[in-house]
Amino acid sequence: MLSPSEVTNRLRDAGPAIHWRNDALELLDQRFLPIENRCVVCRDALQTADAIRDMVVRGAPAIGIAAAYGMALSAREHDDLPAGPRREALLQDRRRLAAARPTAVNAVNLLSRFASLIEAAGPSAGFAALARRIHAEDIGINRRMARLGSGRIEPASRVLTHCNTGTLATGGVGTAFGVIASAWRAGRLDRIGFTETRPWLQGARLNAWEFSRAGMPATLMTESAAAEMARSGDVDWLITGADRIAMNGDVANKIGTAPLAALTRMGGGRVMVVAPFATVDPLLQSGDDVAIEQRDADEVWSLARGGTLPAGISVANPVFDVTPAGHVDCLITERGTISPANGQSPTIGGQHTAC
Amino acid sequence: MLSPSEVTNRLRDAGPAIHWRNDALELLDQRFLPIENRCVVCRDALQTADAIRDMVVRGAPAIGIAAAYGMALSAREHDDLPAGPRREALLQDRRRLAAARPTAVNAVNLLSRFASLIEAAGPSAGFAALARRIHAEDIGINRRMARLGSGRIEPASRVLTHCNTGTLATGGVGTAFGVIASAWRAGRLDRIGFTETRPWLQGARLNAWEFSRAGMPATLMTESAAAEMARSGDVDWLITGADRIAMNGDVANKIGTAPLAALTRMGGGRVMVVAPFATVDPLLQSGDDVAIEQRDADEVWSLARGGTLPAGISVANPVFDVTPAGHVDCLITERGTISPANGQSPTIGGQHTAC
Repeated sequence: MLSPSEVTNRLRDAGPAIHWRNDALELLDQRFLPIENRCVVCRDALQTADAIRDMVVRGAPAIGIAAAYGMALSAREHDDLPAGPRREALLQDRRRLAAARPTAVNAVNLLSRFASLIEAAGPSAGFAALARRIHAEDIGINRRMARLGSGRIEPASRVLTHCNTGTLATGGVGTAFGVIASAWRAGRLDRIGFTETRPWLQGARLNAWEFSRAGMPATLMTESAAAEMARSGDVDWLITGADRIAMNGDVANKIGTAPLAALTRMGGGRVMVVAPFATVDPLLQSGDDVAIEQRDADEVWSLARGGTLPAGISVANPVFDVTPAGHVDCLITERGTISPANGQSPTIGGQHTAC
Repeated sequence: MLSPSEVTNRLRDAGPAIHWRNDALELLDQRFLPIENRCVVCRDALQTADAIRDMVVRGAPAIGIAAAYGMALSAREHDDLPAGPRREALLQDRRRLAAARPTAVNAVNLLSRFASLIEAAGPSAGFAALARRIHAEDIGINRRMARLGSGRIEPASRVLTHCNTGTLATGGVGTAFGVIASAWRAGRLDRIGFTETRPWLQGARLNAWEFSRAGMPATLMTESAAAEMARSGDVDWLITGADRIAMNGDVANKIGTAPLAALTRMGGGRVMVVAPFATVDPLLQSGDDVAIEQRDADEVWSLARGGTLPAGISVANPVFDVTPAGHVDCLITERGTISPANGQSPTIGGQHTAC
């Protein structure tokens, strides 16, 4: 059993979630945090897609950045091919990277920025440069969203967050986590609550260390305890990230977000979603059409330690849900702030108005 | 790792949750199920109170029965004392047994039935006989509630339950579990869902085996997945037990019940609470005054396997919540059925009317 300081040191010593080095993609393996500080090195697009599917790296913005580096790896791997076959190979890898996780859309949107490079079947250096630019942009986007979001938080607010949206889920300070950190530094928070986030425990395994490392006192609880806190009026703001946002403002995010949002509003609180604009899916009219990823039964069942499932028992393990636009008071992107609950929709191009 | 059939056999071979044998109280140790089939033998009231507090036995009806046997043990232990000191010792043990878990009220109500025996400082045989009678009554109460409750369930219903309320939580076929089993045998259920029930995993560790053993196909899910199922209209009946019911119909039960009830009703479903009348607290006007037990941080935190808590991180671990009467469509006790949501209150004495 590690001491907390050992774990904290280990995480501090850990590289960033995503690191491009020596023409390879180094990913901090989040499946083993906080116990083991392992790293997965991806040398081609297929390895990158596998790492995304297997949740070595997770969080919609981080998945998008990793996928972009996956294109850089693809371009290098196929550097020697003639233009036609090279283009085909690049397109195939892009499809693989985009499909690794079905719900998050950031990868799809960011990978679309490689279209002209793929069409030109250009040299790999251009692909690597674009991937690095996408990564650098995310850092700036995080900062801007943190500032915009924290400006909405009133003094003495009690906030609740769900799933991990910090440095491990993004390229920078995080989405919802960045807003909370900024509001905390501004002295506006009375309490920070976070869920353990079953089944993958992004809260208990990742947020606990991110909050501690940032010096922010925070309270861990089960989803049930958090839901009751929201229902009974003890949450002023539920603040979460997003995996896909429809054009009508519906928000796909970690399973449990939609019920927490409904209960927060029932209890008189408000709901803020913080996500890069790349999370908006221009092809998705409403959340009704989001493909909800179903993951393996064992992610849930393994806790019971009872071997394989007993006869007749099945497991439902949807890992995302859709919060209706009417329950999202405030949507923060790097383009500004809108209020889906008041009928405002994310528009392509142009700044958002205030909520 | 045990095979499912080994675990099923083990549970089938396991003694009942509560067994009075050779003037001792044998409790199946539910902390180690389904992995280990251990038994705790209590030989005095103090050991019984400890076993209740440490959750060797859990579930409000089972706690009440165990506490009644605890009085039988107390009477035997103090058999040699003169009447005055014997009465004092019996009263002290009754207080200990009643206080072992602060939220469930069944123990308090059932222990009050020992008042005249204590007052008379009578022989221990009378105490043991009353404890056995209370145990036997619970079996009949379970059967009657199962019949009453399942009569309310329409054909093709999709039901959801939370926490374990079966043979492990009661003296008989269970409370909510008994209703679900009866409705299933009557062919009225299209789907049975059950939560894993964090943090103690009463669902994943206990219900999975109870459903499988009873031959009832059922689906395990996280609380978040269940909450979203309820919110989005895929639950016709949420069916739970109760730990304490106020005179206005408010229901204290496992943490997560109140949010699931609110979401089930939001999604168009209804809420049924099934509990022996001993769960009604005549001294409690409303749920506002229920003492909510807070249990140890480690029940939640241990899952993260990160050693002791990191600096600045705390855990909130309330293990009960209060569902407002307005969210309880149907309250089933052995006295009948009422509808707190329609303003009906549990009355002391007399049968309940139909909901």
